[in-house]
Amino acid sequence: MANASFETKYESVCRYLREAALLDSTTSVLSWDERTRMPPGGAEYRAEQITLLAGMVHQKRTDPKLGEQIDELLASSEVTEAPESDPAVTLKRLKRDYDKKTKLPARLVEELARTAVLGQSQWDRARAEDDFDSFAPVLEKVFALKREEADALGYDECRYDALLDDYEPEMTTAEIRTVLGGLRDELVPFLAEIAESKVRPDTSMLERAYPIDRQKNLARELAVRIGFDFDRGRIDETTHPMCAELGAEDCRISTRYDEQFLPSALFSVLHEGGHALYEQGLPTELFGLPLGTSVSLGIHESQSRLWENLVGRSLAFWRGFYPRVQGIFHESLHDVPLERFYQAINTVKPSLIRVEADEATYNLHIMIRFELELALLDEQLSVADLPGAWNDLYRQYLGIEPSGDAEGVLQDVHWSAGLVGYFPTYALGNLYASQFFEQAAADLGPWDESFEEGQFEPLRDWLYEKIHRHGQRYFAENLVQRVTGAPLSHEPLLKHLKGKFGPIYGLHYPPI
Amino acid sequence: MANASFETKYESVCRYLREAALLDSTTSVLSWDERTRMPPGGAEYRAEQITLLAGMVHQKRTDPKLGEQIDELLASSEVTEAPESDPAVTLKRLKRDYDKKTKLPARLVEELARTAVLGQSQWDRARAEDDFDSFAPVLEKVFALKREEADALGYDECRYDALLDDYEPEMTTAEIRTVLGGLRDELVPFLAEIAESKVRPDTSMLERAYPIDRQKNLARELAVRIGFDFDRGRIDETTHPMCAELGAEDCRISTRYDEQFLPSALFSVLHEGGHALYEQGLPTELFGLPLGTSVSLGIHESQSRLWENLVGRSLAFWRGFYPRVQGIFHESLHDVPLERFYQAINTVKPSLIRVEADEATYNLHIMIRFELELALLDEQLSVADLPGAWNDLYRQYLGIEPSGDAEGVLQDVHWSAGLVGYFPTYALGNLYASQFFEQAAADLGPWDESFEEGQFEPLRDWLYEKIHRHGQRYFAENLVQRVTGAPLSHEPLLKHLKGKFGPIYGLHYPPI
Repeated sequence: MANASFETKYESVCRYLREAALLDSTTSVLSWDERTRMPPGGAEYRAEQITLLAGMVHQKRTDPKLGEQIDELLASSEVTEAPESDPAVTLKRLKRDYDKKTKLPARLVEELARTAVLGQSQWDRARAEDDFDSFAPVLEKVFALKREEADALGYDECRYDALLDDYEPEMTTAEIRTVLGGLRDELVPFLAEIAESKVRPDTSMLERAYPIDRQKNLARELAVRIGFDFDRGRIDETTHPMCAELGAEDCRISTRYDEQFLPSALFSVLHEGGHALYEQGLPTELFGLPLGTSVSLGIHESQSRLWENLVGRSLAFWRGFYPRVQGIFHESLHDVPLERFYQAINTVKPSLIRVEADEATYNLHIMIRFELELALLDEQLSVADLPGAWNDLYRQYLGIEPSGDAEGVLQDVHWSAGLVGYFPTYALGNLYASQFFEQAAADLGPWDESFEEGQFEPLRDWLYEKIHRHGQRYFAENLVQRVTGAPLSHEPLLKHLKGKFGPIYGLHYPPI
Repeated sequence: MANASFETKYESVCRYLREAALLDSTTSVLSWDERTRMPPGGAEYRAEQITLLAGMVHQKRTDPKLGEQIDELLASSEVTEAPESDPAVTLKRLKRDYDKKTKLPARLVEELARTAVLGQSQWDRARAEDDFDSFAPVLEKVFALKREEADALGYDECRYDALLDDYEPEMTTAEIRTVLGGLRDELVPFLAEIAESKVRPDTSMLERAYPIDRQKNLARELAVRIGFDFDRGRIDETTHPMCAELGAEDCRISTRYDEQFLPSALFSVLHEGGHALYEQGLPTELFGLPLGTSVSLGIHESQSRLWENLVGRSLAFWRGFYPRVQGIFHESLHDVPLERFYQAINTVKPSLIRVEADEATYNLHIMIRFELELALLDEQLSVADLPGAWNDLYRQYLGIEPSGDAEGVLQDVHWSAGLVGYFPTYALGNLYASQFFEQAAADLGPWDESFEEGQFEPLRDWLYEKIHRHGQRYFAENLVQRVTGAPLSHEPLLKHLKGKFGPIYGLHYPPI
C-alpha cells in the first residue's frame, strides 16, 4: 500500500502544479493578446491583470507545503530505488526549481520586477534619443540587483553561473567561455577571408515588391510544409516575431511582413515555426510539468535556428521551394536564377545590429555581449565605460563601429529588462543546432533529395524522437551527449559555416 | 477618527472586489480569444483555464469575510446618515449581490454549470439533426435545476421573478406581463394592417455584391461616426456578433461580413457599437464595482437597439450616410435611390428566426419565449408538449409555422445554457430604447439635421449624462422614471413603430 500512497501524493503534487500552469499560461494569453490585439488604452489595466496572476503563480510555486511534499516524495523508496523513473526525474527537477525560487527574498523579486518595467520604458526613451547617459543609472541598478540575485542564489565558480542557470540550467560560464572561444579563434580569420573575397552577392532582388497578402499565404504554406499544426496553432502579425505557448495545445507564432524585403517574413516564420515544432512536440498530457516542458532557452533556440538556417537557407531546400516562390512573386523574381537567390539570402556582411546579422557573423554579436555582461557583473567594467568598451569590441570583432549608442549599446532590450545571462543561449542555440543537424544527417542518410521534394518528416520525426518528446528529462549538456555521442563543441557549426560560405565566396573549402 | 476607519475599511472592500474583477475580466480575455482567435485544438485546455478562474472569482465574491465587512460598513453612521452617498449606494448593491450569490449551494452551482456545458453541446447536435427528442431530457434537467435555483433564491410572487432578477434586477414577471401585453394588444392588429398593405418593398439590392474589405472599412467608419473609441477598443470578426469588455479600457466588438448581404455587418456594428458606447461611458476608475457597472441586460440592450434601430434605421441617418455608402458600393447601389434603400432596410416580414426579425415583429418572438418559459418553469407545460406549443404560438402571433424544430424551438441557445428569464430583456431593451429616445428628442430638440450631417455628439452626450455615467446607481425602473419622468410603458415603442412603418406601408399614420 506504500505504493498507492506514493501514487496519490505524487498525483496531488502534479495536479497542484498543473493548476499553477493553468494560471501561468493565462498570463501568456494576456501577454499575447497585449502584443497582437489589445487597444492601446487597455495597457494599464492589462498590466494589473498580469501582475496579479504572476503573483499568484509565484505564490503557488513557492508554497512551503509544496516543498515539504516534494521532499517527502523524494525520500520515498519509489524514488530512491528507481532514480530514472518518470516520477523520480520529475521530482528531482521540481526540487531544483523549488529551491531556486524560494532562495530569493520577496523584496528582491519585487524590486527586480519593478526595475525591469521601469528599465524597459527608460531604455525605450534612451534609445529613441540616442542618450546613454539617461539610461546609465537604470543599468547600474539592474546590475546591482542581479549581483544581489546571484549572491542569494549561490554559485560555485562565478556569479554569472547563478544567472545563466535561469536560462540554461547546469551550464557554466567556463564551458561557454571554452566553446565560444574555440569558435571565435577560427571564425574571425575565416570572416577575414570572406571580407577579402572579390565575390559580392547581389541582394537587390530581395528588396523588390513583395505584396503582403501573397507573403501571408506563403508564410502559412511554409509553416505547413515544415509541419506546424494549425489545428493547435496560428500565425499572427507583430512588430517583433515571436512564438508563444498559450496552453497545452495552443502554440502561436507571429511574424512581420515587409512589402520591400522578402526575407523578413520568410525566415522569421521558419525560425518561430522551429520553436513551435518543439512546443507542439512536447507531451501534451504533461503540460506544466518538467517532462512536458522544454529543456532550456539554448535547446529551444537550436530548434528555431535549425529550421531557419540549416534547413531554410540550404541549397537543397531552395532547389525545391524556389520555383514556387518564383511563381508567387513572378514580377520580382522571374529574372533571378536559383543560384543568385541562394547567394543573396546567404550573404555575409558584418553589421551593427544583432537581429539583422547573417548566419556567419551572428555569434560575434553574442560574444561581445557575453564579455561585456560578465565584466559588468564582476565590476571589472563600469557602466560609464560600457559604450566605449562596446565600440572597441565591435571594431575588434567585426571591423565596424556604431556612430551612436542607439545602434550600439542601446540596441538590445535584454539588460534593461534584467535579462543578464540570457545572451549566450542565442549562440548555444546555433552550436546545438549544428551538432544535432550533423548527427541527424549521419543517422538519416542523404536528405538533399527529400528536402528538394519538400519532405521534412524524417528530420522532424528525428527531432521529436531525440529531443522533443523527452521534455526536461535531460539537461542540455546530457542531451547533446546522448543525441550526438559527443560533448558540445564549436566544430560542427564551424564546419557548417565553412562548408557553406567557402563555396559561395570562392574560398578553398569543400563544396556543399 | 470613525470616519477614517470607515474610509479605510470601505477602500479595502473595494480593493478586494477590484481584484476579483481583475480575475473576472481575465476570463473575458480568455473567452474572447477563444471565440475570435484560438486554434480548435486549444479548446479543452482553455475550458480548464476558464473553469479555474471562474471558480476563484466565485470564491472571492462569496467569501464570508466579505459579507461580514459589507454588513459592518452598512451598519455604520456614514451609511445610515447618508444613504444616497456613493459608498452607501455601492454597499447596498454589494450586499444584494453577495446575498444572492451565497444563497445557492455549491453543489447546485456546479450542477448548473455542468448541465449548461453539456446542454449546449447536446443542443448543437439536436439542432443540426432537427431532433428535439434527443434534447428533451437535457431541457427537463435544465428546468428542474432552474426551479431548484429559484426556490433557493426565494421570491414573493412567482418563481420566474427569482430568475429574471439575475438579468433585470428588481423587475417582476407581473410588470413584464403588463408591458408586453399592452404592446401585443396593439402590435398584432397593426402588423395585420401591414400584412394587408399592397406595399412590398424591394429588398433585392441588399443581396448584391458587397466586397468584404470595403465592408470592413465601412464598419470601422460607422463605429467611429457614432463615437466608438478605438483607443480603448477594436472590431473583430466572429460568427456571432458580440460586444465584450476585456478590462477597464478595453471593450471590443465583433461582427460578421456577408459578401452577399450588406445589412449583416452594417447593423451589427451599430448594435454592438451601442453596447460598447455604454461600456466606454461607464466610470473607468470604478471598474468592477457597482457604480462602474451597467444596470441590467435590458438597459444594455436599450443602448444597442437605440443605435441600431432608432438611429441606424432612421431616414435622417440615411439621408446623411447613404451617399457615402452608395459611393463605396457604386456597382451595387448606383441605381438605387435613397427611398428604396430606406424601405428595403425597413421591411416588415414575419419570419421564423428571431435574430433575423425586423424591428416590428421582433418583440413577438420574445413574447412567445416568455410565455413558454414561464409555463415550463411552473410545470404548466411539459417539455414533451413544448414543440407543439411553440408552433401554435408562432401561428397565432406571426401567422407562420416552422417546418421543423431546428427552425422552431431549437433555434435559440439560451435554454440549453440555463439562461431562463433572459429573453424578456431583449424586449425590455426595445421598450427602454424608445422611451429614452423620445425623451432625448424632447430634451434636445429636432435633430434630423444633425443626423444628416453625421453629428451624434448631442445624443451620445445625453446618453452618457443620463444613463452611462451612473453605473448601477439606479435600478432600471427608477432610471427610466428618473430620465423620462414616467414609468416604463409600451407606448413610445408603439408610437415609433406606427410612425415609421405606417408611412412606409401606406397606412394612415402621421408621416415621419
